[in-house]
Amino acid sequence: MPMEGSSTSKLTSNGVAKNIANTAQSISTAQPTTPLPELDASLLQKTLTNNPRPVPELNSPEIAQSKTCTDHMITASWSVTNGWEAPELKPYGPLSLMPTASVLHYATECFEGMKLYRGYDGKLRLFRPNLNCNRMLMSSSRIALPGFDPLQLEKLVMALCEQDGSKWLPKDRPGNFLYIRPTMIASDSTLGVQRPKEALLYIILCCFPVMDASTAGMKLLASQDDMVRAWPGGFGYAKVGANYGPSLVAQGEARRMGYDQILWLFGDECNVTEAGASNFFVVWKTKEGVTQLVTAPLGEKIILDGITRRSTLELARTRLVNGWTPTDGSLPGKLDAIEVVERKFTMKDIEEAYDEGRFIEAFVAGTAFFVGQVSLIHFRGKDLNIEMREHGYATTLKGWLSGIMYGKEKHEWAVIVNETES
Amino acid sequence: MPMEGSSTSKLTSNGVAKNIANTAQSISTAQPTTPLPELDASLLQKTLTNNPRPVPELNSPEIAQSKTCTDHMITASWSVTNGWEAPELKPYGPLSLMPTASVLHYATECFEGMKLYRGYDGKLRLFRPNLNCNRMLMSSSRIALPGFDPLQLEKLVMALCEQDGSKWLPKDRPGNFLYIRPTMIASDSTLGVQRPKEALLYIILCCFPVMDASTAGMKLLASQDDMVRAWPGGFGYAKVGANYGPSLVAQGEARRMGYDQILWLFGDECNVTEAGASNFFVVWKTKEGVTQLVTAPLGEKIILDGITRRSTLELARTRLVNGWTPTDGSLPGKLDAIEVVERKFTMKDIEEAYDEGRFIEAFVAGTAFFVGQVSLIHFRGKDLNIEMREHGYATTLKGWLSGIMYGKEKHEWAVIVNETES
Repeated sequence: MPMEGSSTSKLTSNGVAKNIANTAQSISTAQPTTPLPELDASLLQKTLTNNPRPVPELNSPEIAQSKTCTDHMITASWSVTNGWEAPELKPYGPLSLMPTASVLHYATECFEGMKLYRGYDGKLRLFRPNLNCNRMLMSSSRIALPGFDPLQLEKLVMALCEQDGSKWLPKDRPGNFLYIRPTMIASDSTLGVQRPKEALLYIILCCFPVMDASTAGMKLLASQDDMVRAWPGGFGYAKVGANYGPSLVAQGEARRMGYDQILWLFGDECNVTEAGASNFFVVWKTKEGVTQLVTAPLGEKIILDGITRRSTLELARTRLVNGWTPTDGSLPGKLDAIEVVERKFTMKDIEEAYDEGRFIEAFVAGTAFFVGQVSLIHFRGKDLNIEMREHGYATTLKGWLSGIMYGKEKHEWAVIVNETES
Repeated sequence: MPMEGSSTSKLTSNGVAKNIANTAQSISTAQPTTPLPELDASLLQKTLTNNPRPVPELNSPEIAQSKTCTDHMITASWSVTNGWEAPELKPYGPLSLMPTASVLHYATECFEGMKLYRGYDGKLRLFRPNLNCNRMLMSSSRIALPGFDPLQLEKLVMALCEQDGSKWLPKDRPGNFLYIRPTMIASDSTLGVQRPKEALLYIILCCFPVMDASTAGMKLLASQDDMVRAWPGGFGYAKVGANYGPSLVAQGEARRMGYDQILWLFGDECNVTEAGASNFFVVWKTKEGVTQLVTAPLGEKIILDGITRRSTLELARTRLVNGWTPTDGSLPGKLDAIEVVERKFTMKDIEEAYDEGRFIEAFVAGTAFFVGQVSLIHFRGKDLNIEMREHGYATTLKGWLSGIMYGKEKHEWAVIVNETES
């Protein structure tokens, strides 16, 4: 008879979240052995490239394509029997996978999106990298990949940035960034559907286009009710591949129709969740006249706990609750005090606010797109045209975030990357 | 202003299903060019291995591991600009993918599961391969991978079976099979979240264990309400990687607790959907005394349209509606007439039938597991122990299917693979 009772609770997604630290260990509980080696950044072995490549020009096709990575990458192999091997920093190049590799069949993969920023003060910075590394652990656990100490991942990210940052983000290009992509895949070549026994963690730095520069604003197409991004009890909160591929048909259709992204709705009430692969925010006045910044809550676990989302909310809560009067003269207008609210809201709420003239702004926020104002939402035959405010809440919040990322404002969220002058 | 109106319907999953044939073409509608090359099996280029490998012994660890593939594989590359290149039959070996490859990040992947059977009459057979190839097209379209003519895929599967079948399924091993895995992955090395512009189709033949031999029956653990496999408007009906990886945590926990698979429930009513990665069937008597074979319907698109499921239903409808009296003397008992029903049913329905003594059998059906009787369902603290019937509906249906696959019964579903005596 199978065991039952309290251990059943581990099957819940809450249980998974609670047990993430034990994932790697618990797989091997059957063997009464010494603990397996953990991921350890201090063991990093370096093999530098003999073929350094040129850095693409700003605004070049190479950057627009987001295919060009820097000279090096970091990899670390894991197996259920041997734990984590020493990580390697080595020349960037192709991976070799057997055609039976789990990741190619069962989407046993997860990733993070971060950026390395070249500050206006000449320094390189990461933005809250600990949050990305913690989330990566949560994602890897959700997709049956091994656990690790997030601090070790952070150190590996830092090591790669230290190696390639100086060359690939030259000091004469302040205000630019590289996109950092920590990735974990199941390299296990067993074709059976089962928990992977082998995995590969890797980190790459990719030349990536600026996606928040459009002054026309983003045009969003609200999803149809038979195309759902995520659901309660699923995995919409985790940064796993399985959230992305299935959205591409809808995204491709939307782009062909002239929209930038899908605004993902959920349920019969058309709850507003995410836009494309970014979090979504609105600013409106309530019927009672209170100005609110509203975004979907994390409770149902159908949206991503975005680092930009979290930072936006935290800045709004600390700097906008009593309103904002620009001190540096760079903003022409002051902003009303806002209430910051994480709650379910629906397209009906948006339409009502729009029709009653209470709708103020909408914007998306995420690492890749950063903060982008929304100029249009199309919902079942109706266009909601939204004002693009040059000096509104979105631009103010974006300015603060950007200031922290690029060193205009000293802030604990920014972590400086050491550059060894070479 | 973006276009609107009727074309919005393409965003629905029904729209996707209707438009599958146009997928590859519609991507390139912007270019007023000649049609791009289609997938064409007649262009197959062959490069045979210089290092043929030994065939694993029956019941050897190599087979149990499901890692060992035959000497060759078939690959075909696609790109949005060049269409399908000529397919290649070549030595089995690793794939080379850039670390930025779409499939490694966004689960842009789909596959099929088929088997090559060595018949008791010495012949090699496929079972309804056209259905798998049609479903592969549906899956590839759902996950934003290119379209193709399913008949060409079938011809490629056939070509690989003709090449490697004779050696890897020797004639002195009748009643054995190789597992066939057609796979398509997005090889596009663009890191941006977008429809892939490059893809690789490949077909491999893998030594695979027999998974339906257990006489103890399968033990199923009903899923908790916060661990949900699929959702209406999602992709549970498509054979895409995104359905599998996210299920492995629950599956791993279930196995650790002594169960074989998860019985996936859906919704507050606990509708019964699939078991593991197989379809699920029950046989019960209704309160009115009618014997029914029941399985979940395809309408909501949350379960896979399994080939074994479909074949089971078709055989039951043609051979069991008036009951069954064995003609060959190999079965001791006759079976009552059954009504074959595809409808929603719940754990409450199952429990009620169980408690009232109306529950007769439960079994799973799929290519990998074939037909396996269920001996136990654990649902929220309660064990339902189900009789394993040596001569019941499951075994009878399984016997018919097996007879067709292994050439004991001549049937149009079995397609003979030519063997060139070498």
